[in-house]
Amino acid sequence: MSILVLYGSSRERGNSELLTNKVVENINHTRVYLRDRQIQAIVDKRHTPEGFKPVADDYEDIVRQLLTHDILIFSTPLYWYGMSGVMKDFIDRWSQSLRSSDYNFKEEVSRKQAYVIIAGGDNPRLKGLPLIQQFAYIFDFVGMSFAGYIIGEGSKPGDVLSDAAALFEARELNRKLAQMRK
Amino acid sequence: MSILVLYGSSRERGNSELLTNKVVENINHTRVYLRDRQIQAIVDKRHTPEGFKPVADDYEDIVRQLLTHDILIFSTPLYWYGMSGVMKDFIDRWSQSLRSSDYNFKEEVSRKQAYVIIAGGDNPRLKGLPLIQQFAYIFDFVGMSFAGYIIGEGSKPGDVLSDAAALFEARELNRKLAQMRK
Amino acid sequence: MSILVLYGSSRERGNSELLTNKVVENINHTRVYLRDRQIQAIVDKRHTPEGFKPVADDYEDIVRQLLTHDILIFSTPLYWYGMSGVMKDFIDRWSQSLRSSDYNFKEEVSRKQAYVIIAGGDNPRLKGLPLIQQFAYIFDFVGMSFAGYIIGEGSKPGDVLSDAAALFEARELNRKLAQMRK
Amino acid sequence: MSILVLYGSSRERGNSELLTNKVVENINHTRVYLRDRQIQAIVDKRHTPEGFKPVADDYEDIVRQLLTHDILIFSTPLYWYGMSGVMKDFIDRWSQSLRSSDYNFKEEVSRKQAYVIIAGGDNPRLKGLPLIQQFAYIFDFVGMSFAGYIIGEGSKPGDVLSDAAALFEARELNRKLAQMRK
Repeated sequence: MSILVLYGSSRERGNSELLTNKVVENINHTRVYLRDRQIQAIVDKRHTPEGFKPVADDYEDIVRQLLTHDILIFSTPLYWYGMSGVMKDFIDRWSQSLRSSDYNFKEEVSRKQAYVIIAGGDNPRLKGLPLIQQFAYIFDFVGMSFAGYIIGEGSKPGDVLSDAAALFEARELNRKLAQMRK
Repeated sequence: MSILVLYGSSRERGNSELLTNKVVENINHTRVYLRDRQIQAIVDKRHTPEGFKPVADDYEDIVRQLLTHDILIFSTPLYWYGMSGVMKDFIDRWSQSLRSSDYNFKEEVSRKQAYVIIAGGDNPRLKGLPLIQQFAYIFDFVGMSFAGYIIGEGSKPGDVLSDAAALFEARELNRKLAQMRK
Repeated sequence: MSILVLYGSSRERGNSELLTNKVVENINHTRVYLRDRQIQAIVDKRHTPEGFKPVADDYEDIVRQLLTHDILIFSTPLYWYGMSGVMKDFIDRWSQSLRSSDYNFKEEVSRKQAYVIIAGGDNPRLKGLPLIQQFAYIFDFVGMSFAGYIIGEGSKPGDVLSDAAALFEARELNRKLAQMRK
Repeated sequence: MSILVLYGSSRERGNSELLTNKVVENINHTRVYLRDRQIQAIVDKRHTPEGFKPVADDYEDIVRQLLTHDILIFSTPLYWYGMSGVMKDFIDRWSQSLRSSDYNFKEEVSRKQAYVIIAGGDNPRLKGLPLIQQFAYIFDFVGMSFAGYIIGEGSKPGDVLSDAAALFEARELNRKLAQMRK
């Protein structure tokens, strides 16, 4: 059971990252920081005769990593009550992968388990719920199992480390992932 | 009552655009096609001593247009059950505008009315609801009035023109906007 | 294709009823006014050795009507952002039907199509969305197809007859149901 | 800071009750078991000339208890992805209280803090979210502060005592409430 973490935050050691690091502490995993990679916004070519063309950015490289791991952790700050734009750009491009003949995206992805880790200010346990529902539809569409989520509260750097409930859930998930890797 | 339309689609004459055009037909309005503009993803500098720095892209130009109109129409396809990444990138940057001393973003924006026009396949009247809720939180945060929304169904180009209910709502809103401009 | 309408309102000719009547105008259908029937709240006996016992009220009679129709229309005012208590009491009792040996509730119900008609004040097109999502989970659990919904706005008696969009959708659905019955 | 717990479950020692008892353990509080009281469904008389009339049941007695406490805990199983019918019947009747001249319901209630404790099977952390959103609208309408919620997982009796995250949150809330009472 290999683990890939996709970090959607635009800054280092933000609250979503801190909380996610508790989840994967002492567990072997692969990290992708989306902010450090080039991912262009989708240009929808589903309905043009020529279809999608290769895009010269890091998207395919990240997809290949995604396809070789069993457990995917989507870690994002709650930006304006949604995932970060850079993470949204990455997921929007899945439309391109669904048409790709290089791999069978949907079938491969349908065997994976997904977790979502969110941190934000302004009552995230309530105002982050639409994002959880959105992720549920996303995972459902590709047949991925939505294995769990954690919502942490925090605005200023480090705040989330005071959210006892979120930390507890992170430790519980850490224990569970450690078990699964045995 | 001046109207600004923000188009979030990645292609010309997609379903969200067609539906939105019915809303503003024969009414004077300003259009911004986000796909044609450069909008970088936010780099969150709220908690760094130096704060946000100017970004060399089209964001500020679009914000200035936004600030000079009374009615804002957010038009987006339903990409993966959310707004398009490029529209999300634009809204994420509002965090920067909230800190800007060039204008009083929150106060100015709080006087505006917002409409949302969405088109998508895969049962958008149900699976687009989290996005509507997300927009509600966004508008609420800046004090903007959420004046209405329309969800149209359509995957292939032109499909939405067969969605009688969405077209009816578009015509009704068109009539209402025409009245308001008198 | 036979149609059963379940009215959840506590009063005659309320807005949800008026709107629903537009949907079934000139179409043969069966009506159940839940306010006129005795439906006790569920007493959960799923985990007691003796199980559920017959309850002397109108519940089973209504279920039998439900089982003999193909299309179910759930018509309810938006009371406190949910369905009316009497409609909730009716649906809660489905837990009892799932255990009943008198019929195969889940299998029979899974072949039916469900529509939801809601009317309410206080921005129902936004604040009624959690109820739509709740109905989606309900129908999904029993395998019923969620064929559509209409949300009308209205507080005072007759208000909904001024909601042009809701009336349009009611007429469209009326046309569709009339077609299906041919 | 006095605490009132409203239990919406239809059975003794169900999972929602067990979880709630952890929240109020060793803290002085008042309990109302809605299943043991008579609460008739609302008959909406807001628009009839004579208005609401007194109803011979336990509703007003429970409202009086509600009005004399500072913190309200709504404890309900997740029945069909909503609160139990009996709890819904109780809240529906608030429409009557809003019209009552015996007390100023909205003003008094607006000074209270509300917590929601839910337990259910079938992925409640996801499928219970519409109910959380519904409670948010309810509390918002009367100006009550939505101070927090806990969702526990459990179908069979006692199951929730294996939900470590829910139990942790219950203990945390217990500590917080104990502090507030000092």
